Amino acid sequence: MRPSGRAPDQMRAITMEAGFTRHAEGSCLVSFGETRVLCTASVETNLPPWLRGKGKGWVTAEYGMLPRATHTRGRREAASGKQSGRTQEIQRLIGRSLRAVVDLEALGERQITLDCDVIQADGGTRTASISGAWVALRLAVDGLIEKQLLAADPIRDKVAAVSCGIHDGTPVLDLDYVEDSSAGSDGNFVLTGRGQIVEAQVSAEGDVFDEEGLLRLLRLARIGCGEIFAAQDRATGR
Amino acid sequence: MRPSGRAPDQMRAITMEAGFTRHAEGSCLVSFGETRVLCTASVETNLPPWLRGKGKGWVTAEYGMLPRATHTRGRREAASGKQSGRTQEIQRLIGRSLRAVVDLEALGERQITLDCDVIQADGGTRTASISGAWVALRLAVDGLIEKQLLAADPIRDKVAAVSCGIHDGTPVLDLDYVEDSSAGSDGNFVLTGRGQIVEAQVSAEGDVFDEEGLLRLLRLARIGCGEIFAAQDRATGR
Amino acid sequence: MRPSGRAPDQMRAITMEAGFTRHAEGSCLVSFGETRVLCTASVETNLPPWLRGKGKGWVTAEYGMLPRATHTRGRREAASGKQSGRTQEIQRLIGRSLRAVVDLEALGERQITLDCDVIQADGGTRTASISGAWVALRLAVDGLIEKQLLAADPIRDKVAAVSCGIHDGTPVLDLDYVEDSSAGSDGNFVLTGRGQIVEAQVSAEGDVFDEEGLLRLLRLARIGCGEIFAAQDRATGR
Amino acid sequence: MRPSGRAPDQMRAITMEAGFTRHAEGSCLVSFGETRVLCTASVETNLPPWLRGKGKGWVTAEYGMLPRATHTRGRREAASGKQSGRTQEIQRLIGRSLRAVVDLEALGERQITLDCDVIQADGGTRTASISGAWVALRLAVDGLIEKQLLAADPIRDKVAAVSCGIHDGTPVLDLDYVEDSSAGSDGNFVLTGRGQIVEAQVSAEGDVFDEEGLLRLLRLARIGCGEIFAAQDRATGR
Amino acid sequence: MRPSGRAPDQMRAITMEAGFTRHAEGSCLVSFGETRVLCTASVETNLPPWLRGKGKGWVTAEYGMLPRATHTRGRREAASGKQSGRTQEIQRLIGRSLRAVVDLEALGERQITLDCDVIQADGGTRTASISGAWVALRLAVDGLIEKQLLAADPIRDKVAAVSCGIHDGTPVLDLDYVEDSSAGSDGNFVLTGRGQIVEAQVSAEGDVFDEEGLLRLLRLARIGCGEIFAAQDRATGR
Amino acid sequence: MRPSGRAPDQMRAITMEAGFTRHAEGSCLVSFGETRVLCTASVETNLPPWLRGKGKGWVTAEYGMLPRATHTRGRREAASGKQSGRTQEIQRLIGRSLRAVVDLEALGERQITLDCDVIQADGGTRTASISGAWVALRLAVDGLIEKQLLAADPIRDKVAAVSCGIHDGTPVLDLDYVEDSSAGSDGNFVLTGRGQIVEAQVSAEGDVFDEEGLLRLLRLARIGCGEIFAAQDRATGR
Repeated sequence: MRPSGRAPDQMRAITMEAGFTRHAEGSCLVSFGETRVLCTASVETNLPPWLRGKGKGWVTAEYGMLPRATHTRGRREAASGKQSGRTQEIQRLIGRSLRAVVDLEALGERQITLDCDVIQADGGTRTASISGAWVALRLAVDGLIEKQLLAADPIRDKVAAVSCGIHDGTPVLDLDYVEDSSAGSDGNFVLTGRGQIVEAQVSAEGDVFDEEGLLRLLRLARIGCGEIFAAQDRATGR
Repeated sequence: MRPSGRAPDQMRAITMEAGFTRHAEGSCLVSFGETRVLCTASVETNLPPWLRGKGKGWVTAEYGMLPRATHTRGRREAASGKQSGRTQEIQRLIGRSLRAVVDLEALGERQITLDCDVIQADGGTRTASISGAWVALRLAVDGLIEKQLLAADPIRDKVAAVSCGIHDGTPVLDLDYVEDSSAGSDGNFVLTGRGQIVEAQVSAEGDVFDEEGLLRLLRLARIGCGEIFAAQDRATGR
Repeated sequence: MRPSGRAPDQMRAITMEAGFTRHAEGSCLVSFGETRVLCTASVETNLPPWLRGKGKGWVTAEYGMLPRATHTRGRREAASGKQSGRTQEIQRLIGRSLRAVVDLEALGERQITLDCDVIQADGGTRTASISGAWVALRLAVDGLIEKQLLAADPIRDKVAAVSCGIHDGTPVLDLDYVEDSSAGSDGNFVLTGRGQIVEAQVSAEGDVFDEEGLLRLLRLARIGCGEIFAAQDRATGR
Repeated sequence: MRPSGRAPDQMRAITMEAGFTRHAEGSCLVSFGETRVLCTASVETNLPPWLRGKGKGWVTAEYGMLPRATHTRGRREAASGKQSGRTQEIQRLIGRSLRAVVDLEALGERQITLDCDVIQADGGTRTASISGAWVALRLAVDGLIEKQLLAADPIRDKVAAVSCGIHDGTPVLDLDYVEDSSAGSDGNFVLTGRGQIVEAQVSAEGDVFDEEGLLRLLRLARIGCGEIFAAQDRATGR
Repeated sequence: MRPSGRAPDQMRAITMEAGFTRHAEGSCLVSFGETRVLCTASVETNLPPWLRGKGKGWVTAEYGMLPRATHTRGRREAASGKQSGRTQEIQRLIGRSLRAVVDLEALGERQITLDCDVIQADGGTRTASISGAWVALRLAVDGLIEKQLLAADPIRDKVAAVSCGIHDGTPVLDLDYVEDSSAGSDGNFVLTGRGQIVEAQVSAEGDVFDEEGLLRLLRLARIGCGEIFAAQDRATGR
Repeated sequence: MRPSGRAPDQMRAITMEAGFTRHAEGSCLVSFGETRVLCTASVETNLPPWLRGKGKGWVTAEYGMLPRATHTRGRREAASGKQSGRTQEIQRLIGRSLRAVVDLEALGERQITLDCDVIQADGGTRTASISGAWVALRLAVDGLIEKQLLAADPIRDKVAAVSCGIHDGTPVLDLDYVEDSSAGSDGNFVLTGRGQIVEAQVSAEGDVFDEEGLLRLLRLARIGCGEIFAAQDRATGR
């Protein structure tokens, strides 16, 4: 029995509230159970210097956690003067995952920045961020299409992410904070709507694992991402 | 006629959603119209070194703005590596305002940190922060009282804040972003539930002003704070 | 009786030594009693990027305190790697106060930076800075006029600042360090030569206050600024 | 045909020069072809505060790249004032990988820091770092055992890492810089001497992939790590 | 003929105003011609951690330049967030020079910090700093002796510094800014009252030099330091 | 007898391995006994802004020390976020020393950066850096000449550096770490192949010194640099 009482292949409740804020070109408040992340997409025509004049765009991400999103208050990164290694690792992963489904040439000379800010944390903040950021991105691109600023849709597919881990010997899906803290190994999978893998990352946290474990986790991830894709469809009205 | 169409002494709609997040000892999502700020109160027994062993506590605040809370995306302070002068000025004001109504001896050797994070900005983020932070503080202290950790209630009074300014020659209450940008002078007033002044701060932004102007703005602030106090009572169930 | 032995409406001795340093386009060593601040005005034609090509100039300020200006040595901000919230708050106030009396269009595409460095501190460093910075600015602009670089005088009025506070129940003018440390509430007023208010800022430091208190402090500030304006006239030979 | 002319499952030449520097408790200059990394192990009894008095130790890592280790000179991180996200991601991976084979209780209240500094880069610097750091760690622990400072050997197994990727549709082992730049997807595998997985991480870089791809890469990694384990045995005289 | 019109072995006018500020335990405003530096000595009993409990003290220095001490405004180091290499090199030299004449055991467990802040710069700021800092140090130590806090005088000798350089083929003493900018090589000498060398540092700036040049510069330095020692005696009333 | 057992005028064994790394335009691993420094020269056509369009180039240097180059591990400067004063002082000295023998006009609009990274430290790292950096520079310029990118050789002479100090009353050459720690005074001399002085810098570390001491140290430095010049010739095949 996993601590959350869920079945091994059972996701937490997923909600995605599109348009949660009004200034961003796209926004989504995503919840995976008690984990809540506000994702916004900002469209700018001011590209980073190394990309200017190449006829293509860029998609990037930043990640942050409100100081009291967690059980005990963490130090505000703006006050400590630098982003932690964890923060940087996560925002690099989010950007990479979304770029995997975007045709940067079709996007034209634009940069879209996905800001993923964790309002409340209960495990899986990076996977919720990727999944919600896709909705914000989709809405922002829809806006560009509506304004006839794009000749073709640069988004090639959906993308979603979910964590999996081996808890007490059992592979389980979508770990919450308590499960994550006690998992022998855990990882994150990023999948496309067509079922292909964008990123697979599994780490031993105490217990090493083997091929079979890796494949079982991937199979769970497919189940979870299926549910997330459905939630994305509802949120974007598709 | 002010840009918002409101009467000169008319506040925007105020909502205060207590308990918006679950980990903090107290939390409140406050809205002044389209301005939305998440305020959390974190109770820690680990005092700053200069206050240890003096038999009293401390109340402090931090302020932040999500990068896309504003019309155009601002740089994330954690990424730029420092908090702006504006951020620091605001968080100092929030802390000072709340300490004005707290008996630090009665609080005992505890620090309460109020984190005010702007989810969406449309003028008045600092006054909404102060007003909402009081609710978060109240809830956190209620929790300490419930657990019988405090002999007496350290909160002596309510505190609320509102902006006022002279727009097109007319003193108006609770400026939104458009009004604030075009006001000749504007300021912020922090008042206690008993009607006393904790902080009065008015700056000329183009147009200088005089005694009468200052008093008229203060009178408007009293009207606005009256509404905020009522909202605080509703949010804290008093 | 106030600690300094002065009457409630009595300023400390004010001296303003114009031309204290020779490289700056304008300079002034201002003393309010034992508080001494060196103010210099630097004229540059290199505007900040956001102001270029708009046909107008900018006036800004920076503030610093020598490490041993105070009773006990403070950490050098250059060594700690960042300016404190207090420093930033003060330099923003100085810049805002001076811009209130400058016609930025008439200044042309120039930036004037006022550096206010506290040589010795005994309360009121920000008000001495504003008052002395005006002299440095006046001298720098006189130089531009002399060189026929300006068609019209961009300075519309004098500006001066003074602190006031309620000490032991008595409103008093121009607090020194000891008075400031024990005042129930205190504030700073920035006034123009014509008597209008540029900035009014009063904070409760323990004791809240009311309308009457606010007005009494403002009346004291008018007395103090009158003396400062006279000193400014003497220093600039008007 | 892969750019390097190697067979798909062919590693580059591996050399490990133990004792390359003399001050460190353990050191190893590891080469994977033209990639050369100096790994040193430093034993300190001064634990990080959060670990003191818990009867166990810690193993951590830092990673750096000499400015001209690469084809074009990169900015020195000490000069830019911060470590890049990539650097932090890599050093977290190295630390995690080594901790997976160390019994921290058996290590006692000691911290061992593995510094991995890239002298010359040609792809695979993080996998060479992990593989070489293990040798430095082994030597440092051997020294502690020799001095009878440890009751039991805290190292439970060997650990090695290698990169794999899909280049032009073909899964290949141990990518050099040219291969890495043009791979459709690539990843890193960290394996123990007993063949278990410590970390599996594969990212699509343009081309998404599937289960079969993931498994094929893992099979290549097993081949590569076998060779690395042999080199580790030779370097540590086992 | 040197640009300043001075004879090759002629110092600029030296003035040393002891007690320029009142909070510091010792202070001195030193002028070498138009170069003016405020030196203060702060006595603290709070030693740096690495020196505690060793029965001896420490003397250290910090150096700064007001932004408009120079012909064109320089960036404030507190605003740029770091001290330049030049600043750090100078403050290390000042500390080393003063420690050369202090018996740190006799000083007891105290730290004396010399802050040297350049009010106006016209060449030779580091040598004026060393020379003036000695006066501030002497006054601070006199105060400790007066209060019977020291059993013996820890200052063993005077110390002074002056710059010399080869200008247009002629060795000259005490270079001002114009001379310094056009010197073929220049250096700084730090001498004790008894004529011994604490520091000799000469750099080629375009023209290399030889033994004879080095000795001639040293001979000039002896002349200059003689005058500085006399000024130090006058300033400290010896 | 000096601690190393060497004669007073005896250098440690000098080795210079040209071409130690392959990406840099020039590289050299220099050893002075157990001190080992990797020097690389990087040629870039991207000049710093203040030098563009002036028809000349620039030579600059950066210096670093691997964390465990020393007896006990030092903090990584990239992790602490800033370069120490010592690091900055050394890299300024290296750059100045090399520019003394380079005709910057003849170099054309190019910047050559010498990176000197200490692999192992045993005293004299800055002098080994200068000596080895010259070899890297020479090789990089030879490459430019070979590619017919330079009309004339911009290197006018060799340059070498060595430390000297007074140990136990005896002037000795090329101090190792133990000797350096216990020397009464020590310094560094930078000389050209023709025997002229580029930099002479001697500091008292406990014991002051006099003219004779200074000259004796310089005479030792001539002996040491003679050996280094020979090693440079061998390394560059001259």
